Amino acid sequence: MKIFAYGIRDDEKPSLEDWKAEHSEIEVDYTQELLTPDNAKLAAGSDGVVVYQQLDYTRETLQALADEGIHNLSLRNVGIDNIDLDAARELNFNISNVPVYSPNAIAEHSMIQLSRLLRRAKELDAKVAKHDLRWAPTIGREMRMQTVGVIGTGHIGRVAINILKGFGAKVIAYDKYPNPELQAEGLYVDSLDELYAQADAISLYVPGVPENDKMINAEAIAKMKDGVVIVNVSRGNLMDIDAIIDGLNSGKVSAFAMDVYAEEVGLFNVDWSNKEFPDPKIADLIDRENVLVTPHTAFYTTKAVKEMVHQSFDAAVKFAKGETPAVVVKY
Amino acid sequence: MKIFAYGIRDDEKPSLEDWKAEHSEIEVDYTQELLTPDNAKLAAGSDGVVVYQQLDYTRETLQALADEGIHNLSLRNVGIDNIDLDAARELNFNISNVPVYSPNAIAEHSMIQLSRLLRRAKELDAKVAKHDLRWAPTIGREMRMQTVGVIGTGHIGRVAINILKGFGAKVIAYDKYPNPELQAEGLYVDSLDELYAQADAISLYVPGVPENDKMINAEAIAKMKDGVVIVNVSRGNLMDIDAIIDGLNSGKVSAFAMDVYAEEVGLFNVDWSNKEFPDPKIADLIDRENVLVTPHTAFYTTKAVKEMVHQSFDAAVKFAKGETPAVVVKY
Repeated sequence: MKIFAYGIRDDEKPSLEDWKAEHSEIEVDYTQELLTPDNAKLAAGSDGVVVYQQLDYTRETLQALADEGIHNLSLRNVGIDNIDLDAARELNFNISNVPVYSPNAIAEHSMIQLSRLLRRAKELDAKVAKHDLRWAPTIGREMRMQTVGVIGTGHIGRVAINILKGFGAKVIAYDKYPNPELQAEGLYVDSLDELYAQADAISLYVPGVPENDKMINAEAIAKMKDGVVIVNVSRGNLMDIDAIIDGLNSGKVSAFAMDVYAEEVGLFNVDWSNKEFPDPKIADLIDRENVLVTPHTAFYTTKAVKEMVHQSFDAAVKFAKGETPAVVVKY
Repeated sequence: MKIFAYGIRDDEKPSLEDWKAEHSEIEVDYTQELLTPDNAKLAAGSDGVVVYQQLDYTRETLQALADEGIHNLSLRNVGIDNIDLDAARELNFNISNVPVYSPNAIAEHSMIQLSRLLRRAKELDAKVAKHDLRWAPTIGREMRMQTVGVIGTGHIGRVAINILKGFGAKVIAYDKYPNPELQAEGLYVDSLDELYAQADAISLYVPGVPENDKMINAEAIAKMKDGVVIVNVSRGNLMDIDAIIDGLNSGKVSAFAMDVYAEEVGLFNVDWSNKEFPDPKIADLIDRENVLVTPHTAFYTTKAVKEMVHQSFDAAVKFAKGETPAVVVKY
């Protein structure tokens, strides 16, 4: 049995080598190139391909794979919106993805960023970098002294709550579908309004479904405490970014961390360092000392990458054996 | 009754105002100036002074206070090594200090810095600042995947352990005087050598007593795992800084955070931004992407400052009433 992988990055190689060592009976080959109609032939003779890319999986690309007799496509990531599903259906593709790789990667990042904002770490680091070693007046706040509002208590939100408890912070939570254990602990408030009224800091862990679009808008921010800290590592469309900027300008929002942005496709994961930066709002936010911008990196840990590589290769093997992987994309 | 305070910083004023509001029967006055022989007369008519400074409390300074009939000195900080204790004894000074203000301030800082080092946050932030929004290859490690060695399990070390547990990290600990609760949990290893051999990251919470001097030296580092992460927020003299630098250069030490430095007096809490920086080793460490230097700011939170102000004023009142404060310096 042979599996061929496209777009393997340097940081994925250790996980790939681990997997190969544990599956010596399986032939594995790979390229750093992303999958295109032109290089589909690299996978000739394989029983399936493993991929991770923002490039579209077009009809031409899928046809090129089918021409090599390959009908098994295992994504190392979760998103399937760049696949021509009509073509995949016609060409009888089996597709798997990796929807859960490391809730901790994302929850940890959100709490690290929150704690850094509370400590005014960006300001302090900038002072140290220019050799101003005076500590005053860059005073920090402690995690344990905060009431932190957690919106969304799925996998990731619950890990964030555990981290907050470790810090000794007071946690309040809101979710339309409360978790029974957290409910028994009495962590839930009855409404978002109640959470907004009580929380010194707010972190979101909800999906970017239409009903959550711009849930953090001017109206919501007005209901929050003065000086609220907001952290968004979930989906960019949860924020009305103009309302956030207004809140930062007025001081209503004392600090903000974002790992996601509604307009991030084509902006994040690109090197703009020697080019004109196309988004003045994000350029402005990046420069603010009370804002932390990361370009959708919350997920990006060795543990998460290992899960993405191992789960996708495991799925590819299952497909090749005619079995059903743990996670199959139904389309 | 009147209390006079010296060296009040802007960040202390809210805590001072809080205390005054709760003690309206007590007259309080203060200056931003540090206490010197020349300005001791500002405290004339007071029953005691509250101070916080790195300036020495010389015989002349203490005599000038005594000349105003003042024999009560309440430090807002812990250190008493800058007091001429012989003179204080001759002049019958009562002295109080604030040895415990916020273990959490320091423990939180140590764990925030550790998590940032694991995430390669300094590298990533520098990329974002110059508009390079590519995430690879700046991959992070998760707190929960680490075995973290905690050396010293007093107040601060125990708070750090709680934070680590919240993250889901594996904690191992060493202390000459084990804490019974932690012992019952089975967290202790039998020796520092055992801790060095097992820990992916090491954070210290021990005093800078002579027997701990340069405990983290070349020999100790050689016993650690390759790529160990080291965090020191305790005392500068715990580190052989040259051995740390050698470890960073060889890669044996993958990352390092320091909030304290054996030679910090006269270097930290000074603005060198327009002057020649006097310590090339620290300048080099500040510039490294896998090193975080903070100038003894771990303690510096609103909660800690409030405790320092309130506890010192409470002690000053006790002295003025002829009573014994909660903490008195015995000398």
